Amino acid sequence: MNKTKLSIAMLALMISFSKADAFTHPVTITDQGSFFAGGTVVTADGEYKKNEPLNFDGHTLHGDHAYVFYQIPKDAHKLALVFLHGAGQSGKTWETTPDGRDGFANIFLEKKYKTYVVDQPRRGRAGRSTVAENISANPDDQLWFNTFRIGVWPDYYENAAVSRDPKVLDQFLRQMTPNTGVFDNKVITSAMIEVMKKSGDSILVTHSQGGGPGWSTAVSSDNVKAVVAMEPGAFPFPKGEVPEVEKTSSPFPAQGTEYSKEDFLKLIKKPIIVYFGDNIPDEPTDNFGQDNWRVRQNLAVKFMETAKKYGGDVTIVKLPEVGIKGNTHFMFADLNNTDIAEHLEKWIKDRKLDR
Amino acid sequence: MNKTKLSIAMLALMISFSKADAFTHPVTITDQGSFFAGGTVVTADGEYKKNEPLNFDGHTLHGDHAYVFYQIPKDAHKLALVFLHGAGQSGKTWETTPDGRDGFANIFLEKKYKTYVVDQPRRGRAGRSTVAENISANPDDQLWFNTFRIGVWPDYYENAAVSRDPKVLDQFLRQMTPNTGVFDNKVITSAMIEVMKKSGDSILVTHSQGGGPGWSTAVSSDNVKAVVAMEPGAFPFPKGEVPEVEKTSSPFPAQGTEYSKEDFLKLIKKPIIVYFGDNIPDEPTDNFGQDNWRVRQNLAVKFMETAKKYGGDVTIVKLPEVGIKGNTHFMFADLNNTDIAEHLEKWIKDRKLDR
Repeated sequence: MNKTKLSIAMLALMISFSKADAFTHPVTITDQGSFFAGGTVVTADGEYKKNEPLNFDGHTLHGDHAYVFYQIPKDAHKLALVFLHGAGQSGKTWETTPDGRDGFANIFLEKKYKTYVVDQPRRGRAGRSTVAENISANPDDQLWFNTFRIGVWPDYYENAAVSRDPKVLDQFLRQMTPNTGVFDNKVITSAMIEVMKKSGDSILVTHSQGGGPGWSTAVSSDNVKAVVAMEPGAFPFPKGEVPEVEKTSSPFPAQGTEYSKEDFLKLIKKPIIVYFGDNIPDEPTDNFGQDNWRVRQNLAVKFMETAKKYGGDVTIVKLPEVGIKGNTHFMFADLNNTDIAEHLEKWIKDRKLDR
Repeated sequence: MNKTKLSIAMLALMISFSKADAFTHPVTITDQGSFFAGGTVVTADGEYKKNEPLNFDGHTLHGDHAYVFYQIPKDAHKLALVFLHGAGQSGKTWETTPDGRDGFANIFLEKKYKTYVVDQPRRGRAGRSTVAENISANPDDQLWFNTFRIGVWPDYYENAAVSRDPKVLDQFLRQMTPNTGVFDNKVITSAMIEVMKKSGDSILVTHSQGGGPGWSTAVSSDNVKAVVAMEPGAFPFPKGEVPEVEKTSSPFPAQGTEYSKEDFLKLIKKPIIVYFGDNIPDEPTDNFGQDNWRVRQNLAVKFMETAKKYGGDVTIVKLPEVGIKGNTHFMFADLNNTDIAEHLEKWIKDRKLDR
């Protein structure tokens, strides 16, 4: 190896090491910790017997709560950021990226936002459920690789803003963690309203399936001051204005959710921004992973039009249109996630939500 | 209410507020984040078909990894602390206590130790398992209240070092989170060895059921420099020296685990400290929650005697004997947990493990 090659190799090594460090500079934390919010208690029939350990008559079960890990940086902005993950994920979604860089939790902590990272009821560390569940161990990684628009397995999209290192994909796929009870929008919303009481006035940041309970939490909680939805799975509409379901090659149709007119108006009083990544076509396609988001992006536009008709402040950002390219469904963890964080921070500042 | 009563009430309120804050002073973090360690990949039979989303032939599943959240404080000690939870728990065990005070993760971070908080394979955020599991939603809180020596439901032990506030018990019981695949000591040990490669040279701190995989990780990983076991469920013995199982009214007998003589000697080359809390009687009792720990404390003494015979540095601390009273099975979260942290820190410093 000649000297030039050697120093390039060393430079690459140094870059890779410096990238593995969290934070561009140390962050001073004044408070951090975790708690459970919401949930319920069920009680078994019969009478509790104190010296019969395996007689469960009259026993209780505490379940259906959310788990929250929070951090308060020194000199924090007034509003907190509350992060709600998507399908098959936990709060891990917002932490270190699969290639070892800062995720949104660290990035916004460094920007002096209080962060509250949630595991929704019946997921991750909030695993205790009031309903039973059979968890299969059926392989399905390729369904998610395609649906999350990394590419069409085993190929990555040419412009995909993710590392091609197999170790990175390994980390990404291990983020999947099962439901320990059936997904229930009402259960999650109920717990999220309690989360917001603890976080106080906040900007609610949702991803994918988390969008659904995110909208209903924003309707019900005065603590939600704005909503940031990263490729949400569902969109709210006032009664009588839910659009027809568009045909798609995806196994997951994009269906509008009906709200009372009153609740819809409560929601759209809050500033809302919706982000979509790259490789979402305008025309129908047999590529189900792409088509899944084509129909959702269309539904988002209908949501925006409806909200604007009633005076709402709704922004849809198609990232390639603002020059941010190659994003998958996990844009906040992609190689260019700091660009997206900056875009979001500008939106927050423009609306004076950083005061 | 007279003036004195009022100011006492206000003082109590202020104390309760200040106690709710994490850290006695802000902590500067140079790096934090999360990763998965270990695990395996299984592949379904058949050939993957790219435009058939619900045909799972040839799909893969990534499972059986551990999840780890780590934090590196400024000017950290060389050795990290790696925390492994017990049965039915997740890394949450080591975070904020049920009554809102700092848990061991925060306490030792503030003492400038690098912390690595684990969710073991098939638990919490490491929920993806290679084997299927049926999760029941059967109430069993009272089994755990009694087994964890908080009291005999619904009564608390008179000296129990825990808050009597029902909201605190609510938080505590919500820490339970189910196995998403059967508990497997080998799977956990295999992942823990990979965790230690990431944490580097470390002190491994285990609780309860985590003690089992803790011992085997310490045998196999050179990165484990010492073991702290909080009321471990099991104890290692060399082949031919495993004691007979003692009779107990607990449904969970305390069984020694057989290791090869070579592996046992590898383990006891490392300093080991084992903690037991209060309300553990010397004589057999029908109180199964107490008897469960009586037989384990006896087994711990036999382990210590065996280890010392071969030159091991094993310390057993029965907390009431050193003046720390009222501790439950979750001593690191009890009201006097800072006393226990100080005791542990002294042990660490005495062995020059803080350098």
